[in-house]
Amino acid sequence: MQVSEIQWSKAEETIIKKAFEIAYQREISALLKEVREVSGSIIELEQLWRLHDFLSARRHDIDGKYHYELSTVIFVFARLIKEGWLNRDELKGLNSEKLSKISALSRM
Amino acid sequence: MQVSEIQWSKAEETIIKKAFEIAYQREISALLKEVREVSGSIIELEQLWRLHDFLSARRHDIDGKYHYELSTVIFVFARLIKEGWLNRDELKGLNSEKLSKISALSRM
Repeated sequence: MQVSEIQWSKAEETIIKKAFEIAYQREISALLKEVREVSGSIIELEQLWRLHDFLSARRHDIDGKYHYELSTVIFVFARLIKEGWLNRDELKGLNSEKLSKISALSRM
Repeated sequence: MQVSEIQWSKAEETIIKKAFEIAYQREISALLKEVREVSGSIIELEQLWRLHDFLSARRHDIDGKYHYELSTVIFVFARLIKEGWLNRDELKGLNSEKLSKISALSRM
């Protein structure tokens, strides 16, 4: 079965939504903290435009990554684990085959 | 004579370049200060994306405004005076007819 065709139970959907929310809040908090720290020491225009470029990239990335869609959940969770925004434990309750797929993808 | 066809003496060009530099430094300093102040209190993602939008607009504006071109100097100086980045006194030495044009445009 294609990863994109995997079916999810109602109970799994609840776990998915919660995990998404946890990772999102974690990533956003880290981003906000980083911007507050970096921007306080900006003294040159070049640094300011670097911050602007950074925000453009992060905005594009975050908008795409947290767009909730069941067909891409496996890939998104693998990425979130790889990036450190989600722990495997936080997906407890998902079917073990799905968890294995996520784990395998997160190590790629 | 069209404003864009106005001729400038070497002495005037020196005054122009200096005035440009003064206004540029003033505007940039104010922008950097504003960003440092605003960004220190960002606690929500929405505020961060507002800062991003603000930087996108300011970058576009500043890149265009300070593009040195003699044919548009009259308009740029009028705008810089209107926006408060340049004082009329800082253009002392330019031909009086040109100064009048700049003053008139800056009040529009």
